[in-house]
Amino acid sequence: MKIIVDVMSGDNAPLELIRGVKASAAENPDVEYIMVGDSDIVSKIASDNEIDISQFELVHSTEVITMEDDPLSATKGKTDSSMSVGLRMLADGKGDAFISAGNTGALFTGASLIVRRASGVRRAAIGAVLPMSPPVLLLDSGANINVTAEYLLQFAVMGSAYMRTIHGVEKPRVGLLNNGAEETKGTELQLEAYKLLSACPLINFVGNVEGNMVMRDKCDVLVTDGFTGNVLLKSIEGMGKMMLLTMKDLFYKNPKTMMAAMLVKSDIADIKKKFDPSEYGGAPILGIAKPVIKAHGSSKEKSFKSALRQAIFCARTGMAEAISGDMTELSRLRKEEKAAQKVSEEN
Amino acid sequence: MKIIVDVMSGDNAPLELIRGVKASAAENPDVEYIMVGDSDIVSKIASDNEIDISQFELVHSTEVITMEDDPLSATKGKTDSSMSVGLRMLADGKGDAFISAGNTGALFTGASLIVRRASGVRRAAIGAVLPMSPPVLLLDSGANINVTAEYLLQFAVMGSAYMRTIHGVEKPRVGLLNNGAEETKGTELQLEAYKLLSACPLINFVGNVEGNMVMRDKCDVLVTDGFTGNVLLKSIEGMGKMMLLTMKDLFYKNPKTMMAAMLVKSDIADIKKKFDPSEYGGAPILGIAKPVIKAHGSSKEKSFKSALRQAIFCARTGMAEAISGDMTELSRLRKEEKAAQKVSEEN
Repeated sequence: MKIIVDVMSGDNAPLELIRGVKASAAENPDVEYIMVGDSDIVSKIASDNEIDISQFELVHSTEVITMEDDPLSATKGKTDSSMSVGLRMLADGKGDAFISAGNTGALFTGASLIVRRASGVRRAAIGAVLPMSPPVLLLDSGANINVTAEYLLQFAVMGSAYMRTIHGVEKPRVGLLNNGAEETKGTELQLEAYKLLSACPLINFVGNVEGNMVMRDKCDVLVTDGFTGNVLLKSIEGMGKMMLLTMKDLFYKNPKTMMAAMLVKSDIADIKKKFDPSEYGGAPILGIAKPVIKAHGSSKEKSFKSALRQAIFCARTGMAEAISGDMTELSRLRKEEKAAQKVSEEN
Repeated sequence: MKIIVDVMSGDNAPLELIRGVKASAAENPDVEYIMVGDSDIVSKIASDNEIDISQFELVHSTEVITMEDDPLSATKGKTDSSMSVGLRMLADGKGDAFISAGNTGALFTGASLIVRRASGVRRAAIGAVLPMSPPVLLLDSGANINVTAEYLLQFAVMGSAYMRTIHGVEKPRVGLLNNGAEETKGTELQLEAYKLLSACPLINFVGNVEGNMVMRDKCDVLVTDGFTGNVLLKSIEGMGKMMLLTMKDLFYKNPKTMMAAMLVKSDIADIKKKFDPSEYGGAPILGIAKPVIKAHGSSKEKSFKSALRQAIFCARTGMAEAISGDMTELSRLRKEEKAAQKVSEEN
């Protein structure tokens, strides 16, 4: 198996990303890694830091898409960027998954345009694994600000396939993020989506899920529009961070509390790990014909290694193929439904 | 000053609410309380529990609006409910503020229809005080699922007046909840609202605020539609609760961690207090001509007393009058702007 890695994009590129690849390779001797980036820069940084990268294939690219670049212009204009070159290699079958810590919008756009969506997928979605126990896959988490009920139905099917293949959840429970539990809640979008989700035999829809229930093991997949998903994801991240800071303040207050901290040191480390984004790897872009993983922009060695682990797992389990299969089935069902509806309307 | 209290609505009515009134009265000898409810039931419960309520005026009502009632039908149909009777008394000048722990939608609808909105207010909004330091007023927190940019501008002006009068913030910073910091972020609603908020001289607009920045002292007033506001509010509540449970689990793990817990007992109590909704009183309904406070449906003595404190404070500081004044000014400004726009379009 080959993983194509954009080592030029992200806040800590290329050094931390090269370190991440090296660490991942040490754990996965059966995986090949192809680094894409400016070969002079990558080679120099590696040798300056005494990292032996001779085991990896290095594909040269001259440009870098920055965080400030406009997604569409960057995808169309910077054709020799590490991101675009890597995506083309994935599209051409030169690897089994692609990973980048770069501009989220550009990666989403590039994946959709270069690697292309799986058949029947109207919009790809960026999934975010929320730090709950068990984990909850939120999608869309920010790529699609405006969605239709039909998109939400597709997100539900794609998210279910992901949780089944990657997390081994047999019948993932799908929840619709809403402002109340009753099926009459929400805007037009939620009302329509509720009907579509309820009627779909491919998923295990469990109804509306409120913001305070996301943490309470109510669903495995949570679907929503990218605007609300982004607000939810960030508020959860923000509260998690605030929690850790509050605990830190508590324990650093005085000698007595510092003594208490000594007694629970390892337990606090566990909690920290639970809320640490670097443990969570990357965000999968679902609905693309092949696995594309977005690593966090601020990825360092450890978090990039986690994201690489996820990319490997996506390729190994056939995640993208599972989604393609279910989406083909969904398209067939929806066509049948619409045909049946047309007949009943004509009669 | 007279506070009108619906003692029949809410999960723990009437006993805990009567207790709350009694506790509030002990702290505020200069305030009069008028209890509205079934006088037989209220008197019996009070005497059964040895609570002397002879100092309070008791106004009889025969019906109760339940949590399941449809807001509009209940407001129009249950005219002799404790909520409707209390709201009419407030409208008729028989008290200075009204408080209820009942059906949020019914209270919102009843307040708008019976007490009526302040002049120029298109939609009232339910404010929620988020447990940040310093506190952040979120509005709308759930009453208005669909809003326009003009509503958001009004929410910003009303929220600013509230934070000025109640929390003594001189120039409250207003943030627009969005999925990114740049002014190009969001749906049509946020794009349009950003323009209106930027141009308004009555408020101190500080730009877009993301979900993870709400906790980081970026704004005093956060405006959004009721759908997103509800999701944000509940996710913050849910994460706060999860945090307290995680800490509890941490300290109850084994004898060593329990020893640590002993050392930080009082500090944990402080954190608990910080995230305890019962410390936060009620949610003000802003834009109504007189103060109407929504206490939490599950209010007990302590939390109801906090909500009563807020009602007293709203009445004492002239919060509703401050909002009315600013809204009159906003209406004048908006008329001028529209007239100027018309002239420039004609030329």
